[in-house]
Amino acid sequence: MIDYRSDNTGRAAPEILDALIAANHGTALGYGADEWTARLQNRFAELFETRVRVFPVATGTAANALSLAASAPPWGNVFCAAAAHINTAEANAAGFFGGGIKLVPVPGDDGKIDAGALAAALAGYPPEQPHRGKAAAVSLTQATDLGAVYRLDEVRAVADVAKSCGLHVHMDGARFANALARLQCSPADLSWRAGVDILSFGATKNGGALCDAIVVFKPELADGLAVQLRRAGQVWSKMRFASAQLMAYVENDLWLRLATQSNRAAARVAAGLDAAPGIKLVAPVDANEIFLELPHGVMDAVEADGFQFYRRSATLARFVCRFDVTDEDADALAASLRRHCAAPARAAG
Amino acid sequence: MIDYRSDNTGRAAPEILDALIAANHGTALGYGADEWTARLQNRFAELFETRVRVFPVATGTAANALSLAASAPPWGNVFCAAAAHINTAEANAAGFFGGGIKLVPVPGDDGKIDAGALAAALAGYPPEQPHRGKAAAVSLTQATDLGAVYRLDEVRAVADVAKSCGLHVHMDGARFANALARLQCSPADLSWRAGVDILSFGATKNGGALCDAIVVFKPELADGLAVQLRRAGQVWSKMRFASAQLMAYVENDLWLRLATQSNRAAARVAAGLDAAPGIKLVAPVDANEIFLELPHGVMDAVEADGFQFYRRSATLARFVCRFDVTDEDADALAASLRRHCAAPARAAG
Amino acid sequence: MIDYRSDNTGRAAPEILDALIAANHGTALGYGADEWTARLQNRFAELFETRVRVFPVATGTAANALSLAASAPPWGNVFCAAAAHINTAEANAAGFFGGGIKLVPVPGDDGKIDAGALAAALAGYPPEQPHRGKAAAVSLTQATDLGAVYRLDEVRAVADVAKSCGLHVHMDGARFANALARLQCSPADLSWRAGVDILSFGATKNGGALCDAIVVFKPELADGLAVQLRRAGQVWSKMRFASAQLMAYVENDLWLRLATQSNRAAARVAAGLDAAPGIKLVAPVDANEIFLELPHGVMDAVEADGFQFYRRSATLARFVCRFDVTDEDADALAASLRRHCAAPARAAG
Amino acid sequence: MIDYRSDNTGRAAPEILDALIAANHGTALGYGADEWTARLQNRFAELFETRVRVFPVATGTAANALSLAASAPPWGNVFCAAAAHINTAEANAAGFFGGGIKLVPVPGDDGKIDAGALAAALAGYPPEQPHRGKAAAVSLTQATDLGAVYRLDEVRAVADVAKSCGLHVHMDGARFANALARLQCSPADLSWRAGVDILSFGATKNGGALCDAIVVFKPELADGLAVQLRRAGQVWSKMRFASAQLMAYVENDLWLRLATQSNRAAARVAAGLDAAPGIKLVAPVDANEIFLELPHGVMDAVEADGFQFYRRSATLARFVCRFDVTDEDADALAASLRRHCAAPARAAG
Repeated sequence: MIDYRSDNTGRAAPEILDALIAANHGTALGYGADEWTARLQNRFAELFETRVRVFPVATGTAANALSLAASAPPWGNVFCAAAAHINTAEANAAGFFGGGIKLVPVPGDDGKIDAGALAAALAGYPPEQPHRGKAAAVSLTQATDLGAVYRLDEVRAVADVAKSCGLHVHMDGARFANALARLQCSPADLSWRAGVDILSFGATKNGGALCDAIVVFKPELADGLAVQLRRAGQVWSKMRFASAQLMAYVENDLWLRLATQSNRAAARVAAGLDAAPGIKLVAPVDANEIFLELPHGVMDAVEADGFQFYRRSATLARFVCRFDVTDEDADALAASLRRHCAAPARAAG
Repeated sequence: MIDYRSDNTGRAAPEILDALIAANHGTALGYGADEWTARLQNRFAELFETRVRVFPVATGTAANALSLAASAPPWGNVFCAAAAHINTAEANAAGFFGGGIKLVPVPGDDGKIDAGALAAALAGYPPEQPHRGKAAAVSLTQATDLGAVYRLDEVRAVADVAKSCGLHVHMDGARFANALARLQCSPADLSWRAGVDILSFGATKNGGALCDAIVVFKPELADGLAVQLRRAGQVWSKMRFASAQLMAYVENDLWLRLATQSNRAAARVAAGLDAAPGIKLVAPVDANEIFLELPHGVMDAVEADGFQFYRRSATLARFVCRFDVTDEDADALAASLRRHCAAPARAAG
Repeated sequence: MIDYRSDNTGRAAPEILDALIAANHGTALGYGADEWTARLQNRFAELFETRVRVFPVATGTAANALSLAASAPPWGNVFCAAAAHINTAEANAAGFFGGGIKLVPVPGDDGKIDAGALAAALAGYPPEQPHRGKAAAVSLTQATDLGAVYRLDEVRAVADVAKSCGLHVHMDGARFANALARLQCSPADLSWRAGVDILSFGATKNGGALCDAIVVFKPELADGLAVQLRRAGQVWSKMRFASAQLMAYVENDLWLRLATQSNRAAARVAAGLDAAPGIKLVAPVDANEIFLELPHGVMDAVEADGFQFYRRSATLARFVCRFDVTDEDADALAASLRRHCAAPARAAG
Repeated sequence: MIDYRSDNTGRAAPEILDALIAANHGTALGYGADEWTARLQNRFAELFETRVRVFPVATGTAANALSLAASAPPWGNVFCAAAAHINTAEANAAGFFGGGIKLVPVPGDDGKIDAGALAAALAGYPPEQPHRGKAAAVSLTQATDLGAVYRLDEVRAVADVAKSCGLHVHMDGARFANALARLQCSPADLSWRAGVDILSFGATKNGGALCDAIVVFKPELADGLAVQLRRAGQVWSKMRFASAQLMAYVENDLWLRLATQSNRAAARVAAGLDAAPGIKLVAPVDANEIFLELPHGVMDAVEADGFQFYRRSATLARFVCRFDVTDEDADALAASLRRHCAAPARAAG
């Protein structure tokens, strides 16, 4: 079987686990008061070309929910794409950590928020109205949950609308590295320079193991976050083992190399499908995910060929490429899809 | 410097980190649907001699707060020792995860809950009164936050009172292994056989790295816990790396060997203090922690000798032994304490 | 000016305020342990032809949010119409009281939930999936937020789907009396006999003053509700003054008479619009509200004629009839609308 | 029977109910946008000699919990007297509304917080420590839950300590009028001039019926409070009926006259007990409550004489005087107590 089910079914990059072992010497203060975590702050300040606060957390869900809780009061509304992971797959963690925050879907293409649609939605929140709660933040998923990547000007357009109404801007960067690899821009360009105030910095999906991080660009959003994280059970007492993973993740551009590999594999699959009849790409393959509308029977046939993937509906399939997908794997998938789409009736039989 | 500051300033047992590397092959379903996590369920069922549900979590705070949230409604009161970690050091995580759960301190010696005092407290909750909230659960810290260990009959006495009033029984087992090593009883004896319904299973303080666990004995307390953990950001997508740590932790009795070593070191320090003038043990040294009331000036002098430890007040010092404290380290600490207590005035100068 | 802005801009029925004065003698135990509140339980048991628990609360928002919090765990999803008041106008009170409950809109016509659409939505919640939270409850608004009334078979159809999947059924009965008056059925028929487990029993919009109520049909949903209400600040210490209002509200069918009057006024307006060009009824006028899509300029013209109402958008107007709207008022509104719709261009000029 | 059970067992002042009826004419915008509520703002600004925001709420519990939620982040600690109503009798409403706020008892006499003890407690919160949560606010109960009244300098001393550490100052003024009547000072003196930032303005216990209020002196604490109240189900849609009660409550000094009467009755009882053997006043009788330690058997005997009151323990009785307690009632209670305490043995027989 070749596994295209998810980013998270895969291995960790060996460099990241090696870093755990390398950190296992001597004693170090607990709860983030160690040297590894101190170095992490500096390393990320370099990486993002500005002063930041970095908080390692166990999961992307924690990163998102705590970022949103820092960006919105309990009576706040957070605008996001309908397809956003925070809205569809995190069991309303944002509502929980945020004490009742409400997620409000905003239309857009390819899993993106459309800036104009956000402006239209915000028009429904005149000053002083209490009935809908407060318009407090917007959350962009980069890359999107349909595999597309916001261009810098698209991020900026959404952020501009948000800021003109006093909203904070969060980016769910579960696949931030994939977006960077796609856009070939700097981390700063894709975050604070484009208007992002707080970032869920994903590592797990891109070769990480047991931690992601919150990166705060707007200092006041970090107020209270250290305590909030503590009571959220997200501050490891042996934090060095988390910080060491994140250091290894960005060391020598490991993260960008991994993301480049997984993006390239997805692009290779997509290229291999070109001109195949009956296959519909749901969104541009900008990162490492491919969403396909497929004729009836094709999913069964592709699975019978030995490929694992998720079925989002009876006709919508998701294929995710990880950093260790080989060219052969990619070509094999494309071939299987092409073959069965060319003969869907037989496949269904 | 010799570090007696905390359990969590120490290294992980190498076996535990090696297990991460050993788990880094192939693909595995995310969010706990992997083979490692399945095996963990079976392994813990053997270990506890009964069917259990095991949920790996990032931290002991998460284990405690989520266990209590599963044991009490948001309007519940949870009884604990005043010194309990949940009450003094977890930023009211129980109140947060539990949607407003209230912790109610109950008197007792050595950081324990006294069963009689619990009964007296519960007398203040007549049926149908709404004003104080509902008496919902009791939480015992084993070993206690003053370094003592509940005997089995003491656990049972508290649990009996609790159950006679319909309360659930939680054990904060951040140092569960140390207690087991002390009592020389089985994990089952110290948990469900003594009346414990849900256990925070600590690993980090005893040579673990990045995870602890919740062990549920009363099945209905696990209802909803899988979803609750998901939205609490405590379900790693690459869960195998957590489950593998916990498997290694109990493999070949590693956990008990580590705890035996740290307990022995603490006992050795305590024995070395025997008959020393001016030193007052705050509680029996049953596990790996030593709490001492010391004459004025002694703490400065001991620190000047090269020992690191925490000052809980101007006269109360805490020394924590980890699994890798050597006999020489222990003897050196005892000697330093004896020397300075014998001459406290000079020390203060 | 003739005020069609809202139910709540109106007076209370004098009988209800008189009841406050009548209750103001002697002493009575606090927090609902008084005789008025005891009688209320019995009176509502008669009214609903079954044993119920009745909890007076200050507002409909409290009734809804606390009912939903009793019907769903914090990780629960509650299905409702997109137009539902709980989803659009209560500042996410359900999310707050429910500790992070999520509202999930379900399609349907006229502000109703379509039973088939609910079934389709529930298909997305396979057993054991944690990512979307738990499908926990459905909430029907009766009359709907577009002025329509669910027929009994429509309520039952939704309830049947819900119950087949283990969901609880809540009815937001802010305009329950209007629905009863429309359907000419018994309170029991429209609630528990149709599958409703817990009801927000509205009074304020229909001539009440300062309280609504929660009526619980499924006894286990009342577990903990007394404490939950206490800590929610919804248990008046002088509860007799709330219970007395509710007693007066149902005494001698006052509530049904009031609702009949407001329904009749709305029907009279609607009848008066018949065959008027350019006016589009958004939904059937089943209760006391009229939603109209109007040509450009008509709203300004009608307002200039001395009518107050709410503009839901540039073209969507809402007119609400209260119990004290006279036939003359109703005819005057219809005439104004007819006149300006017949000549929209001039009106806009 | 003569009822000394509680403030809330009593009648409302007729003026307050009459105000409801007087307000029942015409139409008025909902949710507090009416003229009565606008006038209330101005009236309270006069009363307190400064700009304030006044928010009517249904209960004192709501006033307290929402005030504290406005004064502390979810990870905040609120310091209060152990005997404080918020700590003993409101089902942890503060923890609920505050998203996990923790109440921390501070020692003091007569139900007061001792300023020195508060300073000592705050020393345990060094900057940047996350483990205990953030020291965020202090709450004083005036009059206290043992019937004493803070002098102005006592309020100021606590507020000074609080403010020197960045805490907000809340006053639970469930019996604010009784304290004013005792101290013969202005509302401004006893609130913002003494350092109070936000006040639970009690009316119910002092002749009110169905509402209390939050009065905000520090404008930034009102940020978001309007929305928070809306989603807390504490904003009546027919708010005029709440605001009218509060207007009547302060009109022509009604509140001070009522409080003066209940204080005087309590003082008369206390004076009548003077020099009676065996009776121990638990705290000074500064307001309308009398707490007595009584010899065994006395409570039964006094009850047999026809007096109703609450037993706080086997030997601690509470007697509460309301505005309508007559001199005869007061003298009768004192006589009964004197008589039975003079012969406690016989009484116990």
